[in-house]
Amino acid sequence: MTTKDIYVAIIGAGTAGLSARSEVAKVTDSYRVFDPGPLGTTCARTGCMPSKAFLQSAHDYHRREAFGALGLDGAKDVQAIGSAVLAQTRELRDDLAGGVVDGMESWQATHLVKETAAFTADGTLRAGDAVFRPRATVIATGTRPVVPEKWRDALGDRLLTTETFFDMPDLPARIAVIGLGPVGLELGQALARLGVHVTGFDPSPMQGGISDPLLQEHLEESIGREMQIVQANADLSLASDGSVTVSWEDGEISVDRVLVAIGRKPNTDTLKLDCAGVMLSDAGHPDLPPGQLNVPGTSVYFAGDVSGGPALLHEAADEGRVAGFYAARMKDATFSRRVPLRIVFSDPQISSAGETFETLQEEGDSIAMGSASFSSAGRARLARDSGGVVRIYAEKATARLRGAAMIAPAAEHLGHLLAFAICNRAQLQDLLRMPFYHPTHEEVLRRAIRAALAECQVEQEALEGTRCHDTPVDAPADKTT
Amino acid sequence: MTTKDIYVAIIGAGTAGLSARSEVAKVTDSYRVFDPGPLGTTCARTGCMPSKAFLQSAHDYHRREAFGALGLDGAKDVQAIGSAVLAQTRELRDDLAGGVVDGMESWQATHLVKETAAFTADGTLRAGDAVFRPRATVIATGTRPVVPEKWRDALGDRLLTTETFFDMPDLPARIAVIGLGPVGLELGQALARLGVHVTGFDPSPMQGGISDPLLQEHLEESIGREMQIVQANADLSLASDGSVTVSWEDGEISVDRVLVAIGRKPNTDTLKLDCAGVMLSDAGHPDLPPGQLNVPGTSVYFAGDVSGGPALLHEAADEGRVAGFYAARMKDATFSRRVPLRIVFSDPQISSAGETFETLQEEGDSIAMGSASFSSAGRARLARDSGGVVRIYAEKATARLRGAAMIAPAAEHLGHLLAFAICNRAQLQDLLRMPFYHPTHEEVLRRAIRAALAECQVEQEALEGTRCHDTPVDAPADKTT
Repeated sequence: MTTKDIYVAIIGAGTAGLSARSEVAKVTDSYRVFDPGPLGTTCARTGCMPSKAFLQSAHDYHRREAFGALGLDGAKDVQAIGSAVLAQTRELRDDLAGGVVDGMESWQATHLVKETAAFTADGTLRAGDAVFRPRATVIATGTRPVVPEKWRDALGDRLLTTETFFDMPDLPARIAVIGLGPVGLELGQALARLGVHVTGFDPSPMQGGISDPLLQEHLEESIGREMQIVQANADLSLASDGSVTVSWEDGEISVDRVLVAIGRKPNTDTLKLDCAGVMLSDAGHPDLPPGQLNVPGTSVYFAGDVSGGPALLHEAADEGRVAGFYAARMKDATFSRRVPLRIVFSDPQISSAGETFETLQEEGDSIAMGSASFSSAGRARLARDSGGVVRIYAEKATARLRGAAMIAPAAEHLGHLLAFAICNRAQLQDLLRMPFYHPTHEEVLRRAIRAALAECQVEQEALEGTRCHDTPVDAPADKTT
Repeated sequence: MTTKDIYVAIIGAGTAGLSARSEVAKVTDSYRVFDPGPLGTTCARTGCMPSKAFLQSAHDYHRREAFGALGLDGAKDVQAIGSAVLAQTRELRDDLAGGVVDGMESWQATHLVKETAAFTADGTLRAGDAVFRPRATVIATGTRPVVPEKWRDALGDRLLTTETFFDMPDLPARIAVIGLGPVGLELGQALARLGVHVTGFDPSPMQGGISDPLLQEHLEESIGREMQIVQANADLSLASDGSVTVSWEDGEISVDRVLVAIGRKPNTDTLKLDCAGVMLSDAGHPDLPPGQLNVPGTSVYFAGDVSGGPALLHEAADEGRVAGFYAARMKDATFSRRVPLRIVFSDPQISSAGETFETLQEEGDSIAMGSASFSSAGRARLARDSGGVVRIYAEKATARLRGAAMIAPAAEHLGHLLAFAICNRAQLQDLLRMPFYHPTHEEVLRRAIRAALAECQVEQEALEGTRCHDTPVDAPADKTT
């Protein structure tokens, strides 16, 4: 067996790995990408793509409840066909995943090794029958859903994860969703909207990843109307009639299927990274300094959620490109992470930008908060939307925007706007100088910004920056009638 | 008849007048607002509010065409009931207009004069039996739809404007829309979606106010699928069978109703402004210097679309507040207008921010343009959206964002983001440093930004700002396999 010297080995052809490859290929052809398949990225195969296709059907179906108020007849004749919803989800998923694979065509034959790769005792990388000696390695093997072994053993195919959920031939009548982070919340609400009886379980009040109590309250109220939410740890067992028994401190229910969405664990167990000088934590994560993607003193780079970060495409793509860029140059991969942006595609949507209520707690009184409700706002009423609430966090001393969180219609867009503002170190006054068109959800954002600004210790501008400051203004005229 | 001296007279209790009042009332109680009614602002009574309520029904109804692809049955059983759509539109309109009137309660009894006001030869202001001598006057009388006299005479109530449109008891079978600016385009498309046979007429290719030929092309293609668009001047006459004949250079059609949306004219004809030293143009507009709201040398201030600006609530509110602020202080009302933002609530929506293709023409080659299509983008495909296109305008020399225009899903939100960026004098690179979540329409915007940046004469950053510039980077490794 000959050993081939290469500049860069990229293990994993997901979003991070493919992004790394694109940077590596700009400077050298001496690289290989290792992936045993199935190809097509987590995003396209089991993540964003199928979930958003599925959610779209659910949210469109739910919309019929506004038909009467809008002057449209026939809402009761609209039916969601579970098998058809799942079939179209798979069709779109396969098409999008196929597109990813098509994008690999120019280099696949020469640079893709369709094998599982692992380090060996002598520091080489073995993949099937081939052995490589890479100068640098990018680990981009991603993660997989966490499922307690005893649940998997007891429940068999009654237990679903995002890996299997979209392959169901039809929707079950009753489902329990274990874990109400973004994935559990999105799919749980969608299932409920499609007519499935859904019970969601999570011991934490941070459903959808929200730490602000004002938003938690609103979330419980709005999404809690559609699915039952139990704030507890659940246990699962198989009942004699073939159903699944979900039990918790205060109760017990029977369901047909269980979706387990309690987190993901890194695909690092078979890599034998210790042979490359990299020690992993018990959870399987490398110990990376903040803002660095390679283990100090090694040329092993990590990109994507494998290293413990969020399973978000845009961050995985960033990390992949940064890791690839530096791996090709054998330099430490330091980088500035973008301003955090999180979106949950529930309805109303949830989003947060920048710092969170939780991370700002330690700054206590120095943070101004302003909130506004979407419920009675013009646009939400016109659109027959379900309302929502937004909260803005800013520095009292400077009025600089630090973060924001919301449950709101169009939260994905408002979140992008605020993320850009934070990214540009904007003060609240800067935001108030922009135009706010009528009637839009952005107008509600403005109310929250004004409320936060009112708490700040900065001079409040008259007329929000539209006044031309070249013109001198006297003291106000006296108050006489 | 006694003459009452007051500090400020505000003529018109619409958006601009009410905004002026709020600023005036902060410094003096010596003011009056004159309005013969009906009260409730153009926005709430005949503008944004009823039109958006009407559009919501149309767009929701249209959405049924995606049901099959989404796994939802029964689309063919959904019916738009024209009379019900109009009834809910009026209900929401009346409720929102009522809310405006309720907001006037605290000062209405003491400060509102429900009469038409006009200046007299001696410079006083007469309103019914009362006479006032204001130190300053804010003219906020708004505009009304332009309708050629001969059309009105010939067609009677077959001719509609936004003043009468929403009071129709039911939808006509066939309608001609004369004028395809934002109003004509929005209502024309909505009517078509609700099952009315619509033919739209406009001699200009700038439908929806769009000057960029790339967007014009897309608009014709997308909205032209739903309603017939004739690029010509139309003439109207009453046929013997009671229908309306619409004739133009190349043809003639019969319709049941005509919506005339060819512009608005200022309500200045009965004010006798010459008595206050203000000369008006033939079109009825005052001659105001750029960025100033009072006629130089006079204490007559103009706020809102009466002075010839766009009929947009947020600009009317700005002008009202600025005019009121300075009228109360007897100072020249100079101000910095916000970055322009225009939104048409068609589907796809149309929006533009900052400068336009038209205004940038004179800068010729110094402007970089980058565009991107929404058609094949992940999110548009997942949402079964109808696609769209966005174009970004930037300064080649500096990569500073100057403007943008788009026909796109969520264009209202992307427009706000870009308006904020322009407002903050952002460069394209600043925008590329923000997070772009997946899958969102913002990702398409990023493609257009990148395309524009590629045309700029600035250094292209590796890794779009995520690379930490503290780390030195050698020249790329050599290209060896």
